[in-house]
Amino acid sequence: MVSEFQFIENLRSKYSLDKIGDDCAVLPKDQKTDLLLTADLLIEDIDFRLEWTIPEFLGHKALAVSLSDIAAMGGKPTWAMLSLGVPKNLWKTDFIDRFYVGWFDLANEFGVELVGGDISRSPDKLFIDSIVGGEVAKGKAIRRSGAKPGDKIYATGALGGAAGGLKLLEGGFEYIDLGGSPTEDAILGQLYPSPQLEIANLLLNLNLATAMIDISDGLSSDLEHICRASSVGAKINASKVPVDECLLHFFPPEVCLEMALNGGEDFELLFTVDQNNISSLKSIDAVCIGEVTEKTGVMELISDGKSRKLLPKGYRHF
Amino acid sequence: MVSEFQFIENLRSKYSLDKIGDDCAVLPKDQKTDLLLTADLLIEDIDFRLEWTIPEFLGHKALAVSLSDIAAMGGKPTWAMLSLGVPKNLWKTDFIDRFYVGWFDLANEFGVELVGGDISRSPDKLFIDSIVGGEVAKGKAIRRSGAKPGDKIYATGALGGAAGGLKLLEGGFEYIDLGGSPTEDAILGQLYPSPQLEIANLLLNLNLATAMIDISDGLSSDLEHICRASSVGAKINASKVPVDECLLHFFPPEVCLEMALNGGEDFELLFTVDQNNISSLKSIDAVCIGEVTEKTGVMELISDGKSRKLLPKGYRHF
Repeated sequence: MVSEFQFIENLRSKYSLDKIGDDCAVLPKDQKTDLLLTADLLIEDIDFRLEWTIPEFLGHKALAVSLSDIAAMGGKPTWAMLSLGVPKNLWKTDFIDRFYVGWFDLANEFGVELVGGDISRSPDKLFIDSIVGGEVAKGKAIRRSGAKPGDKIYATGALGGAAGGLKLLEGGFEYIDLGGSPTEDAILGQLYPSPQLEIANLLLNLNLATAMIDISDGLSSDLEHICRASSVGAKINASKVPVDECLLHFFPPEVCLEMALNGGEDFELLFTVDQNNISSLKSIDAVCIGEVTEKTGVMELISDGKSRKLLPKGYRHF
Repeated sequence: MVSEFQFIENLRSKYSLDKIGDDCAVLPKDQKTDLLLTADLLIEDIDFRLEWTIPEFLGHKALAVSLSDIAAMGGKPTWAMLSLGVPKNLWKTDFIDRFYVGWFDLANEFGVELVGGDISRSPDKLFIDSIVGGEVAKGKAIRRSGAKPGDKIYATGALGGAAGGLKLLEGGFEYIDLGGSPTEDAILGQLYPSPQLEIANLLLNLNLATAMIDISDGLSSDLEHICRASSVGAKINASKVPVDECLLHFFPPEVCLEMALNGGEDFELLFTVDQNNISSLKSIDAVCIGEVTEKTGVMELISDGKSRKLLPKGYRHF
């Protein structure tokens, strides 16, 4: 069965769609500014389960995933639209009101204005399409396609927490506000992600990142997107991958590393920097996890001095 | 249960959302141009049934409904995004490929470029969110709020065909290409609507329409949206309502009128014009169906010299 990535690639090629293939589309806005556009689906029982979250968290996450796409281009979000397909039984409750409370809390934090969308009845599942528009200085959007052999590869934050949180939820753990327990940290990583807009803004101003993507499908898959778009390969040093510490309370180290490599939805940033410029990165909270190679399409994981193939094992819908 | 219209009105008021309340949001683009934005959901078994349509028609309709929103503001569509939640069984077939064929046929007709969107798996129903961006000369977008007492009310095209087509499909009729039978005309009205972008463009250039909306929910409901936004009332002359002739082959005249008044999805335009300017409308294919009154919120239907209340009985999701 064709994956959604392959399908989109086929569509791009068949219809000559040159704006597709990054975290956001980049369109000319005015003389100084480009418009960034992104849309993200969240579908009940595919992307979330109502019994695992609370409406405010879901509203937050619906916006956060799109803000993360804007961050991945180095942009600043400005407006949003929200399309909701709502089952009747949910419409009768305060669920949607509370969903918007979470949505607006995050929107207000970044000055994002709700300008439109649609509301429809849905037969049985809640369906969310989050659309965000942003801005970036003309020609400055950071794309997936600029990585060059020799560039160093960086990741922000800690990885695997969202995947670990999902495992805990699947195992019967529930979100309870405990003021910072490892369980809570992992579950919040899954239910309440933070878009890395501030780091993105710093990177844009420093003009350092040669390529960037947000880690939504999983480090391995998102790195592959950069490799494919840039026609390069990559070598990742396993010991440098910033595994989320909260995972170590629940899983053996090799499982934690696997979650950091292949678990999606951390919404951290993955970017590449010319090796001559890395000293300028000091102000950025990110770690070097490897480097770009000339071996087009080949990703390697270096562990205990040995190299093995790193396969894109992040989330796939199909 | 609160209707979606009331819900959106409450949201607007609670969060001070001044860009919401027209067919499109209007945002500044550059010195000469405003950006128009619209999003429309089409959800399986709510907005369409797979057994009644063909994938190409559904792709066409998904785009057509959003182009109609751009038309309602007097705008020109430029780009689109498409978010699809696809059940696995449909993904395995050529359905989505054929859906895009229909989508691109219409997109190419109006020079609309696909720039993004999302594709996700859906548990069982097909979900479509159609997002379109357009342009209009700065400050010239035709809003719902400009109707004044004394203005004449106009509708383009013929009304009720889409509702009649839906009734035929519900009654077991099927779409068969018969080269223009009344059955085919009605069913095509439902499955394959045409956005009125050309008339919208003429109206914008003539600078004549004081208010405009597309007839998506139904004439009565869409007229109420204009009345509410403009703080006016309206008087409609029943004998002037352009009932789709194909309906007369299947339904008694009073049912046909009811379909023309309350059936949605004709995607024709409803607009108001200052009574002193109506002579300039000659080049526009539209009929005068009534006039705007001072009675805020009151809609009347004049039939055989008698007046009765016209209630907004168009489609409601909740």
